[in-house]
Amino acid sequence: MTDLLQQLRTAVGSANVLTEAADTAPYLTDWRKRYHGRAQAVVRPGSTAEVAAVVQACAAAGTPMVPQGGNTGLVGGGTPDERGNSVLLSLQRMNRIRALDPDNDTITVEAGCILQQVQQAARAADRLFPLSLAAEGSATIGGNLATNAGGTQVLRYGNARELTLGLEVVLPDGRVWDGLRGLRKDNTGYDLKQLFIGAEGTLGVITAATLRLHALPRVQRTALAALPSLQAATALLNQARAAASATLTAFEVMSDVCLRSVARELPQQRLPLAPDTAPWFALLELSDPDDEARASALLERLLGAALEEGLAVDAVIAQSLAEAQALWRLRESIPEAQAKAGGNVKHDIALPVSRVAEFVASTNAALAAQFPWIQPVVFGHLGDGNLHYNMQTKPGTPLATAFAHERAINEVVHPAVAARGGSISAEHGLGQLKRAENRRYKSEVELALMRSIKAALDPHGLMNPGKLL
Amino acid sequence: MTDLLQQLRTAVGSANVLTEAADTAPYLTDWRKRYHGRAQAVVRPGSTAEVAAVVQACAAAGTPMVPQGGNTGLVGGGTPDERGNSVLLSLQRMNRIRALDPDNDTITVEAGCILQQVQQAARAADRLFPLSLAAEGSATIGGNLATNAGGTQVLRYGNARELTLGLEVVLPDGRVWDGLRGLRKDNTGYDLKQLFIGAEGTLGVITAATLRLHALPRVQRTALAALPSLQAATALLNQARAAASATLTAFEVMSDVCLRSVARELPQQRLPLAPDTAPWFALLELSDPDDEARASALLERLLGAALEEGLAVDAVIAQSLAEAQALWRLRESIPEAQAKAGGNVKHDIALPVSRVAEFVASTNAALAAQFPWIQPVVFGHLGDGNLHYNMQTKPGTPLATAFAHERAINEVVHPAVAARGGSISAEHGLGQLKRAENRRYKSEVELALMRSIKAALDPHGLMNPGKLL
Repeated sequence: MTDLLQQLRTAVGSANVLTEAADTAPYLTDWRKRYHGRAQAVVRPGSTAEVAAVVQACAAAGTPMVPQGGNTGLVGGGTPDERGNSVLLSLQRMNRIRALDPDNDTITVEAGCILQQVQQAARAADRLFPLSLAAEGSATIGGNLATNAGGTQVLRYGNARELTLGLEVVLPDGRVWDGLRGLRKDNTGYDLKQLFIGAEGTLGVITAATLRLHALPRVQRTALAALPSLQAATALLNQARAAASATLTAFEVMSDVCLRSVARELPQQRLPLAPDTAPWFALLELSDPDDEARASALLERLLGAALEEGLAVDAVIAQSLAEAQALWRLRESIPEAQAKAGGNVKHDIALPVSRVAEFVASTNAALAAQFPWIQPVVFGHLGDGNLHYNMQTKPGTPLATAFAHERAINEVVHPAVAARGGSISAEHGLGQLKRAENRRYKSEVELALMRSIKAALDPHGLMNPGKLL
Repeated sequence: MTDLLQQLRTAVGSANVLTEAADTAPYLTDWRKRYHGRAQAVVRPGSTAEVAAVVQACAAAGTPMVPQGGNTGLVGGGTPDERGNSVLLSLQRMNRIRALDPDNDTITVEAGCILQQVQQAARAADRLFPLSLAAEGSATIGGNLATNAGGTQVLRYGNARELTLGLEVVLPDGRVWDGLRGLRKDNTGYDLKQLFIGAEGTLGVITAATLRLHALPRVQRTALAALPSLQAATALLNQARAAASATLTAFEVMSDVCLRSVARELPQQRLPLAPDTAPWFALLELSDPDDEARASALLERLLGAALEEGLAVDAVIAQSLAEAQALWRLRESIPEAQAKAGGNVKHDIALPVSRVAEFVASTNAALAAQFPWIQPVVFGHLGDGNLHYNMQTKPGTPLATAFAHERAINEVVHPAVAARGGSISAEHGLGQLKRAENRRYKSEVELALMRSIKAALDPHGLMNPGKLL
């Protein structure tokens, strides 16, 4: 046993230093099973002091560290490389809710809390913690912050970044920065928490956070509208924003291909509108503190006007909670249906909302010209300009053809995104998957700035090496 | 003429390099006339390229630079020191609105645009740019961003930071970072713009920004409520948040002393409620996309319940735009009334909202025990936990007594703020005024992190030296 392992055992107890392959395996493969890494050990500290002790020991030994939350990331950001010299630092045991202050609308939680646990604690205090995403039953809040998670409520409440008031971070040398402030205004120097949010564990280990809560809306009204085009979707979004302002809490889009895929792969799902109705569909959600009649009237007025103006060709409003949940399930089961069908070449892109429709038309056409067998499966958070712009094959062409052309497809999609001032990773981060690709679309100045920040905070490059930068 | 002056004249034209005392004087004193500095020259570049050329020349000469916007700051952040070796870089000529994208709800503006100009451009496109503060007629957006300005609409829309999607920055060596992205989701590396927002020009010169616009509310309803205590104000705030959610766009408080001061110093102001009605007053504003009846009903219901429960003792709802403006004028004229009365010892503090009432009671008592002549004049943005906790003297004691005890008063107030996890500068920044004081309340770890960021981005310490850090 090495000195380091001995120190880690002293720091966190032998039971929390895993070295047997059977024990460490679940931590060393990402959940999409694309990345497989090795590590000296998986360490499971139970407190900030234990995290600090682990980091100090690793720093002293010059050992790389890979922080990991619920291991639900999509870009390999929490999986170590294959050299086997790193220590995987799992935050899962740090799962206490430290405080909830209803009068300040804040909750202070440890990094290993499951997102759903935070949502439930807020709800029990009659508050909303609005971060919501598919993996919320297993993703940790620490991972959500390290990747600046997005999800379905960003339009109204912002990304994980906008929901964070304070952080506690163990720095790469083991010092603890206590920035757990629950303040909405604080101009006493550089806003250090912003550095660690979205840094994917490359600048330090987030151990706790003070998060912003919101008033719990008692009424939600949900609708599905069939739309003649993505231009019409953008126009409807803008009308909805003007009419509903902050009560518009979601505006999602999906193409007819998505609905057909769900109908085919998940036949238990009922479609309230037939996929043939229109080429595009929008899911709208209005939330109101308590006025059901108002929310209903607003939604009916909006959709009525859209039908009259030709921005929509058909629409259904959920008449019960069950119907609303069914609409959301339809939207949320698109990835599952796609996975069942064998997957696809994925892009998680963001654009100015004003460029989305034109981007999709022009890039679909460019891809079709180059790859006649291609079938776009496009859905996403139009209100945030965020599309899951995925590519599979038309019937008759094996799916493998798409994967075989993954790089060539990226060569069409990513430059088109960049040319419109967009982002090649809207909400999933860079991790290992997009790290090299990202360098092609960032200016030299921006890359140099990022490197200088990394060198300032982690001069020995020990925090999550090979990720992001 | 030195080489540097010659280079600056080449870069921006002789007319834009001011060296005569009569020309430079307005730039070398802050607007409260507390700080008086000197400079080799005042330089007024007209474009990003000119700013870059100026910064390059200064960097090559090892000359410190002091960026300045509208020169409306309250902490001396834009005033050079007295050594006279620096160059003052005024951004006022960079005042073009570069783009407005209504479908993306964004506006791209140069740093020297006056805040009001940005508000008006948004309104002309049927959008709201919500940043709003007393100096909006002369403050520049660049200064607002460099100081992460707050103001009266933070409760609903956030500080300047939350309103910023992208930045263009000239770095301390003259390189230009183009981060003018209009994206609501972008997880492709460290969020560099966050470094420059609130850095008070110590890390680079903000030359342009892409800002977030919101739906323009067509209806606003405003009320003034007389409250038995600050606890009651906090309870009313929470009821208002739960009932009105995002339609609650302002919740301001002021003590009876503030109202008396306005009545005495600005007799043309009419008070809709007599100062004797209660010890505290709250100004509430509800905004609605278009439904006047709803906003009125909600406000009446809220205040009706508060009166019944004893959270309010009286209330008036503005019945016209003129009456609403009069209520806001009352709130906004408190600083003017105080200035007329000879000023006071100011504190711009933030606390968790849940600690505000207890802080004021306990700190008022501690101050009264030590300084029997003291008279607190307290008002501010309760919804943000932000108080202007100012101190003057009771009748019979000259105001000079308060100023003579400024440090001793700070010695009571600031530790009480720190003990409650608060901030000694909520929205004004540190500048020269609070730079040294701030070091007493920050951990060594936090100060070290800030210094390492400064050293990484501005290794020669040329950007706005003597400010913030």
